[in-house]
Amino acid sequence: MALSKSKREVEEEASNNNNLGTAGEPNRNTNMPHLTDYLQLENLKTYTNPLDQNRFFHPSHGFYVSPSDVILRQIVYDLSSACGAFSDSDPRVHVAYHRAGPRKQIFFEPKNTRAAIVTCGGLCPGLNTVIRELVVGLWELYGVRQILGIQAGYRGFYSTTRNPLVLNPKMVRGWHKLGGTVLETSRGGFDLHQIVDAIQTNAFNQVYIIGGDGTMRGAVEIFDEIQRRKINVGVVGIPKTVDNDVGIIDRSFGFQTAVEMAQQAISAAHVEAESAVNGIGLVKLMGRSTGHIALHATLSSRDVDCCLIPEMEFYLEGKGGLVEFLDNRLKENGHAVLVVAEGAGQNMIPRTAAQTEERDESGNLVFLDVGSWLKTELKKWWARDHPGELFTVKYIDPTYMIRAVPANATDNLYCTLLAHSAIHGVMAGYTGFVSGPINGNYAYIPLEDVAQATNAVNTKDHKWAWVRTVTNQPDFVKS
Amino acid sequence: MALSKSKREVEEEASNNNNLGTAGEPNRNTNMPHLTDYLQLENLKTYTNPLDQNRFFHPSHGFYVSPSDVILRQIVYDLSSACGAFSDSDPRVHVAYHRAGPRKQIFFEPKNTRAAIVTCGGLCPGLNTVIRELVVGLWELYGVRQILGIQAGYRGFYSTTRNPLVLNPKMVRGWHKLGGTVLETSRGGFDLHQIVDAIQTNAFNQVYIIGGDGTMRGAVEIFDEIQRRKINVGVVGIPKTVDNDVGIIDRSFGFQTAVEMAQQAISAAHVEAESAVNGIGLVKLMGRSTGHIALHATLSSRDVDCCLIPEMEFYLEGKGGLVEFLDNRLKENGHAVLVVAEGAGQNMIPRTAAQTEERDESGNLVFLDVGSWLKTELKKWWARDHPGELFTVKYIDPTYMIRAVPANATDNLYCTLLAHSAIHGVMAGYTGFVSGPINGNYAYIPLEDVAQATNAVNTKDHKWAWVRTVTNQPDFVKS
Amino acid sequence: MALSKSKREVEEEASNNNNLGTAGEPNRNTNMPHLTDYLQLENLKTYTNPLDQNRFFHPSHGFYVSPSDVILRQIVYDLSSACGAFSDSDPRVHVAYHRAGPRKQIFFEPKNTRAAIVTCGGLCPGLNTVIRELVVGLWELYGVRQILGIQAGYRGFYSTTRNPLVLNPKMVRGWHKLGGTVLETSRGGFDLHQIVDAIQTNAFNQVYIIGGDGTMRGAVEIFDEIQRRKINVGVVGIPKTVDNDVGIIDRSFGFQTAVEMAQQAISAAHVEAESAVNGIGLVKLMGRSTGHIALHATLSSRDVDCCLIPEMEFYLEGKGGLVEFLDNRLKENGHAVLVVAEGAGQNMIPRTAAQTEERDESGNLVFLDVGSWLKTELKKWWARDHPGELFTVKYIDPTYMIRAVPANATDNLYCTLLAHSAIHGVMAGYTGFVSGPINGNYAYIPLEDVAQATNAVNTKDHKWAWVRTVTNQPDFVKS
Amino acid sequence: MALSKSKREVEEEASNNNNLGTAGEPNRNTNMPHLTDYLQLENLKTYTNPLDQNRFFHPSHGFYVSPSDVILRQIVYDLSSACGAFSDSDPRVHVAYHRAGPRKQIFFEPKNTRAAIVTCGGLCPGLNTVIRELVVGLWELYGVRQILGIQAGYRGFYSTTRNPLVLNPKMVRGWHKLGGTVLETSRGGFDLHQIVDAIQTNAFNQVYIIGGDGTMRGAVEIFDEIQRRKINVGVVGIPKTVDNDVGIIDRSFGFQTAVEMAQQAISAAHVEAESAVNGIGLVKLMGRSTGHIALHATLSSRDVDCCLIPEMEFYLEGKGGLVEFLDNRLKENGHAVLVVAEGAGQNMIPRTAAQTEERDESGNLVFLDVGSWLKTELKKWWARDHPGELFTVKYIDPTYMIRAVPANATDNLYCTLLAHSAIHGVMAGYTGFVSGPINGNYAYIPLEDVAQATNAVNTKDHKWAWVRTVTNQPDFVKS
Repeated sequence: MALSKSKREVEEEASNNNNLGTAGEPNRNTNMPHLTDYLQLENLKTYTNPLDQNRFFHPSHGFYVSPSDVILRQIVYDLSSACGAFSDSDPRVHVAYHRAGPRKQIFFEPKNTRAAIVTCGGLCPGLNTVIRELVVGLWELYGVRQILGIQAGYRGFYSTTRNPLVLNPKMVRGWHKLGGTVLETSRGGFDLHQIVDAIQTNAFNQVYIIGGDGTMRGAVEIFDEIQRRKINVGVVGIPKTVDNDVGIIDRSFGFQTAVEMAQQAISAAHVEAESAVNGIGLVKLMGRSTGHIALHATLSSRDVDCCLIPEMEFYLEGKGGLVEFLDNRLKENGHAVLVVAEGAGQNMIPRTAAQTEERDESGNLVFLDVGSWLKTELKKWWARDHPGELFTVKYIDPTYMIRAVPANATDNLYCTLLAHSAIHGVMAGYTGFVSGPINGNYAYIPLEDVAQATNAVNTKDHKWAWVRTVTNQPDFVKS
Repeated sequence: MALSKSKREVEEEASNNNNLGTAGEPNRNTNMPHLTDYLQLENLKTYTNPLDQNRFFHPSHGFYVSPSDVILRQIVYDLSSACGAFSDSDPRVHVAYHRAGPRKQIFFEPKNTRAAIVTCGGLCPGLNTVIRELVVGLWELYGVRQILGIQAGYRGFYSTTRNPLVLNPKMVRGWHKLGGTVLETSRGGFDLHQIVDAIQTNAFNQVYIIGGDGTMRGAVEIFDEIQRRKINVGVVGIPKTVDNDVGIIDRSFGFQTAVEMAQQAISAAHVEAESAVNGIGLVKLMGRSTGHIALHATLSSRDVDCCLIPEMEFYLEGKGGLVEFLDNRLKENGHAVLVVAEGAGQNMIPRTAAQTEERDESGNLVFLDVGSWLKTELKKWWARDHPGELFTVKYIDPTYMIRAVPANATDNLYCTLLAHSAIHGVMAGYTGFVSGPINGNYAYIPLEDVAQATNAVNTKDHKWAWVRTVTNQPDFVKS
Repeated sequence: MALSKSKREVEEEASNNNNLGTAGEPNRNTNMPHLTDYLQLENLKTYTNPLDQNRFFHPSHGFYVSPSDVILRQIVYDLSSACGAFSDSDPRVHVAYHRAGPRKQIFFEPKNTRAAIVTCGGLCPGLNTVIRELVVGLWELYGVRQILGIQAGYRGFYSTTRNPLVLNPKMVRGWHKLGGTVLETSRGGFDLHQIVDAIQTNAFNQVYIIGGDGTMRGAVEIFDEIQRRKINVGVVGIPKTVDNDVGIIDRSFGFQTAVEMAQQAISAAHVEAESAVNGIGLVKLMGRSTGHIALHATLSSRDVDCCLIPEMEFYLEGKGGLVEFLDNRLKENGHAVLVVAEGAGQNMIPRTAAQTEERDESGNLVFLDVGSWLKTELKKWWARDHPGELFTVKYIDPTYMIRAVPANATDNLYCTLLAHSAIHGVMAGYTGFVSGPINGNYAYIPLEDVAQATNAVNTKDHKWAWVRTVTNQPDFVKS
Repeated sequence: MALSKSKREVEEEASNNNNLGTAGEPNRNTNMPHLTDYLQLENLKTYTNPLDQNRFFHPSHGFYVSPSDVILRQIVYDLSSACGAFSDSDPRVHVAYHRAGPRKQIFFEPKNTRAAIVTCGGLCPGLNTVIRELVVGLWELYGVRQILGIQAGYRGFYSTTRNPLVLNPKMVRGWHKLGGTVLETSRGGFDLHQIVDAIQTNAFNQVYIIGGDGTMRGAVEIFDEIQRRKINVGVVGIPKTVDNDVGIIDRSFGFQTAVEMAQQAISAAHVEAESAVNGIGLVKLMGRSTGHIALHATLSSRDVDCCLIPEMEFYLEGKGGLVEFLDNRLKENGHAVLVVAEGAGQNMIPRTAAQTEERDESGNLVFLDVGSWLKTELKKWWARDHPGELFTVKYIDPTYMIRAVPANATDNLYCTLLAHSAIHGVMAGYTGFVSGPINGNYAYIPLEDVAQATNAVNTKDHKWAWVRTVTNQPDFVKS
């Protein structure tokens, strides 16, 4: 497929139809960026996918994904509305994404491909699996032999002390069984021009960036700069957020493992609470802007009496408040378990002047420890209302014991498919994109869309209602 | 909603539109059965959902699911085909299912509701969670107080020695942390008339049947007989198959746990193989008609050299055969790990006359032990081709150690949502249905559809291709 | 020991020989207390052990332990010293303890036996196993049918709101798989006269007290008061200290489980440290007066660079100090892992006036959080000496996640033998004693001895030297 | 022991006193072999232990173990017997062993030390930890730089295809977290002269042999041959037997891990049995000549109804037989769990002529599968006595899943101390010995003693009585 305008017909048709039914102008948000968007076609050679000559299997008919294959984003409809069928009024209705998978024609010659992999931000189960699979996938599927690991986050691109690590399948063999990231990671260190200069200096033509929302916004800038410089470099983002707070995709890697590990902490809190007189077990789980881990861990555990998340306001004192609720639970059961997401109640905790200013390396406001605050408040309440009576609060913060473990089987498989999807996409010339599951199917999504999307817990829908029917906790709606 | 023909307009519209766009006759396979299908409306009273008066939360706008809410089954499209949009040519294209969730109007008065729960067939992680959540959900959400556990499978309905167990939330409190089924289970024992007689005698008006494909076919017969007798009994099936071989729904409960547990066996096989000279680790995993567990466990583990499943033919001797492949692996690495699904290669194993006849209690052909057979064949091969050289095959069959564990967090959550979905559906008057996730959303599916659907591994698609790119095993295509 | 020669000949011989070779006056510390010490023999009936009629097995010759069977405490000798054989100069040399196990004659008639079990203080893995086995052992081995669980610690004896729980084997069946204590526990609440009054009022004649060093001191007081009142009540203490800080016995129950669980925390700290630039993983482990958990966890893990315990002084700044050591480690390896026992460095942490006074319910000085203090100090050091350089300290306090788990297999077995030993001893008329392993054999030890003994890590001996050869950490000896 | 009084005074005193009190002739079984026994002293130089110059710690007074330090073997005494004190009549009474630990003077110069490590026989948790610690200990403690791993068992000494692996601390860093043996292992291949020739050719002067009883017997032969050849080579055996069937030492490494892992299998069997009608869960555990794993696993689990071991005869039919017992259990509880050690009932299983002859590579009689046999016999019994009634036997053989895991914390620590003990002993010139714990203290024991000793479960003593009181199983004594 020596691609010319006429030769990209099918590709174009797909792009134009990203907004299904609206055959209008392709626009940035809904169209998949592609190297051909900003590079002259005469400079872009294409090659037959080397999978075609794989010595272990014969690609069957239908093995390659067609560039016109798409996946619907919206799949729940109310047939009673409007015409009872697909309505154009809802902007989300017809959004679809390119299906991930190998393409028959690729835009990189394996022997000239030079890939860089970088991990940024905090730890997340599965990081090493993603790295491992990028290395193994590039090497085994496409025959790429130049794969480099950028060390310790964005600053590793231009670090003068730490050179990129040369990676190969033998080296990464057991990495999927290790927590953390062998490449090391750090927050911050984003310097656009130094990074893109380094990409050029090192002659990288594929860059795989694994990180959180801040990192993804950086990746968008890198992609934009690369376009400006008109260099032939594919950029792919792999969203890493143990909190599952990234939008559009079904869920982020490591999340299931985190929910699994959180059970241990909740179980310990439950045992401590049950074994004491008026015992309260208090567990703080990760989740700065979203309460997904807290919510899922609560529903999986069933030992939790109350789950507090950032998406939901709550209050301590008065009718319908947390204190009244806990007072009742202690009377009924003699103990209670409380799960609180890191970001819950941040506006309720008194901040010192310094704390109002302080920000972390990624520029996020420093979070106050809602767990310690709650523990103190609960003790104050009890001393005030039940002087002389026994009371215990055991506070558990399992954060590092959750996020520093290897991925479980579910996440390991997810990371594998994620990494291989990313490789297939970059090889096919897509750039400035993210790979991820949409309604269960791996797809390619413009990086910018993902960098902007968030994924809050919808406290109006059923899953949250389920939390409340499981915990029978108050909804803190002052009626 | 004292439902009359005119009052079921919206419901009907939805039903008629199950095949979206084809406004034709509702037919059995694509329409959700409902009590109103065969009972006179004048005999069916409706009630306001008691969730409306829940003391812990105020149902928000949009809390109740509208009967016209549907979920699309087909979400991957090739835009280049035909008209570039939705085509009517593919029969699956426009299938949609009713969305699961609480309805504002229900057809059962809680105080007169009498529910029966039964588990049939083999064990599966999560069984007790489903039972627990049916009990807790009926009790807490709907105020049902008569919930009975039928003991030891279908035969428990009419057993003279084992009465149904009276269940309540306190009793089932910790069941989700137990493997197996506290209600006990058995294969066979299906006697249609005795069962439906018992349902009438015991005045059950809701029957929750948890079991495999044979059990689901029995549930269809029960549902048909109930319709014939025109009795007001809601019947719901909850497909239980650790093999994940049920069709239509995304996956079955317990499956993720099984894949997780299988890692232990594969890891042990790997260690044994690596620690020996010419060591082969051989693991047999569950999967009679489908290889999903073997496939997922292989992709999650990465220690497997070859994965054999029922959906794929293989052969031992000759060019491209298993023996040649293993010979090469032993030469290269000194060891190899083989995962084989229970149902693989059944047609290759010599059967005695008796074995050709023998069937299990559920009427399934008795499976021969493909693991033992392979172990023997491999030893024969080595003795023949490498006389005097060291060689070891360590064969591991972890079946019971996989299926008899409690569900992991992912499956526990799944089981909860599954059970609550089923309850909401039955309460809303649906019957002869199954609850399950379709593309990530819980939906109601006609029982008969599910009883007939299968879910084979598609050896033509990418996930299987991924197995082969991960294992680099041959595709056993004689070219 | 007013005991007529004719009646307790064998017993006496044993007692007299507790100090082997010194046939002198029996003294309190080395003689096992027995009911016959303070009760008139004419009031004490003896019975044949009901195990003799057990329907499941025939006690073999040698099944019963003779009262003259003893276990040596001291088993390591230096043959070159003195006479080259047993020397009388070392007071420990000839100490021996009565061997635990069933006696042929017992002092309680099962049908009139009324046993009380109480748990006090903090949680420890295995608590529920001990309770379970006391219940099962009394019931199954001796046919005791009145077994009561005192709720929530010492105060449960005289609580007006919480009656003792009637226990039986069916009830406790699965307790050994649960963390915590089903009987609940609390600190403090020791009121000698109310407790002994309650023992009399409730007609308990066997009291099993499970708790830490404070609890054991309370048990000695109870035993003394019982002697004063000359009531026929056997008192046994079962030392519970996850820290393993009790003396004389080989180790305390729950300790091995704690060491096992601590691996998770150390492993997480290691991953966090390795994945960061100049990353330090800091884990605080239980151990107020002793560092056994820290020491064993360090030796088991091998990921630890430095282990700090209460038995060893350390200092931060200067040559040979912690800061210098860590600086070198970060230069060499880029990361370091630090394990610190709860009680280490307590004299180095600045205390507020309030903290100098504050004591917990058991009367112990409140411990300051050495982990938080170290974290702060390390950050100060880095900011001072390496301004602008990346640095991370991840601090993990896994206390509750360690102590609130069920016992592992090793500890479960230990708890079983411990509980059964205690029962056999009380039944045989011993009182004011503790059961526990001495050099691998279960023995009976006077309660008072155990209440006074401590078990510090000997920083002069080989095990601690091994820590240092494994960690290569400094010995903080200013030379 | 031709050793001049002046040169080895202290040492001699200790040796002569191995039989404490009997100052008679030293004999092979009770004296520790030493290089000086057969080598001319003028050829043996001694050196100061390099630990003396360790840069991390200052050896304290008492750090070094004196050669006259011994550990008593017998520590339980019946004071009523004979003279009421130590009797000379019992041959075991006065046996003592040299205490393990570093000596001030050593017989090997580190820079000229060349150590070989070999693993033989089946897998056992902790194998890799032992190897790791031998490497790390030799390197870090003594500065040895030539450490070689013999590959794949005894035959690796003289293999022409597989050279010894050069080992160093960096290489073995994470080995203690891996199951199996990185050096690989095999059965058989023992060729005395080729092995000792290879030891000479390779100039090994320390040989560490890790293996089971057959391997230990081989080690004795190697040691004898080395003495005959009068070469300066220290030989140490490290007994590896997951079955814990080696005598004299307290227990073997890996055993605790095996007992822990066995819980999973028993738990699965229990769940399967409980969830079925007349369900029997049958677990076969390792233990050819001894039932220690079965016994400990049963006592730890408490879910077992009957435990069968090689040391105890049993029978199926008739009064007091297994069938009668199970019949009663099924009537009472509806299910039962049976644990059977591999070697139990071997004389009851019909053997074909071939099976009567067949032996494995180590020369052991091939064991028949007692689990399969029992399963068949139980099914026959049921079909005969309860025709038409439901019945299920689920048989689990978890052997490889137990033995192929990494050591748990307890065993990891044990392996560390074991390996370091062995190193200190060889360095001190001891040879032909084993290191191992005696009554909780690490000691050196003549290799020949260990090779001959066995460790059967004493079915007359209390621990076995405890099994029976826990399981209430019959004692199969026909009365």
